[in-house]
Amino acid sequence: MAESEFKTKFRAKVTVMFRKSILDPQGAAVERALKSHTAGDISFPEISSVRVGKVIELTIDGIDAGADAGSVEEKIKILADRILANPVMEEYTVAVEPL
Amino acid sequence: MAESEFKTKFRAKVTVMFRKSILDPQGAAVERALKSHTAGDISFPEISSVRVGKVIELTIDGIDAGADAGSVEEKIKILADRILANPVMEEYTVAVEPL
Repeated sequence: MAESEFKTKFRAKVTVMFRKSILDPQGAAVERALKSHTAGDISFPEISSVRVGKVIELTIDGIDAGADAGSVEEKIKILADRILANPVMEEYTVAVEPL
Repeated sequence: MAESEFKTKFRAKVTVMFRKSILDPQGAAVERALKSHTAGDISFPEISSVRVGKVIELTIDGIDAGADAGSVEEKIKILADRILANPVMEEYTVAVEPL
């Protein structure tokens, strides 16, 4: 059947980070912790910047036959704008792959 | 110069998620919010699972000439095991790219 060629299951990954212009205190704290970690054998003074964000992994199942990764991505972007991210302070990227 | 072929600047991305067997209440809350979002034109009842994790983006600058993405990744994994993730409850992936 032609229908079976359409995927109905997707995984979407939304990565939300503070905009570059916004101070990221959590990232600064992690940077300090990483740089000052010298317990035992390893140190990493070369770390020059750390930003911490969140990643939201969505599984989408049973979407209309005929949906492709592009159309799922469009829909996820609307949800990201409205719910998952605060566009004033944050920026996000969306990656969708069929499962 | 041969030296100039070595990269000394890298970006590493560490993605930390709860292990599959660990309950993710934040993900469950986001799932509920996304599913029940019907304001206006869009709804997304097909979302079947949501997991929320964190992403830590590190910039590494001025590392020894001769370092490659692989050796940076090894070092970042040690830091991830010790500081960035709790291996009992969380799993992580590391991706390194030269800048």
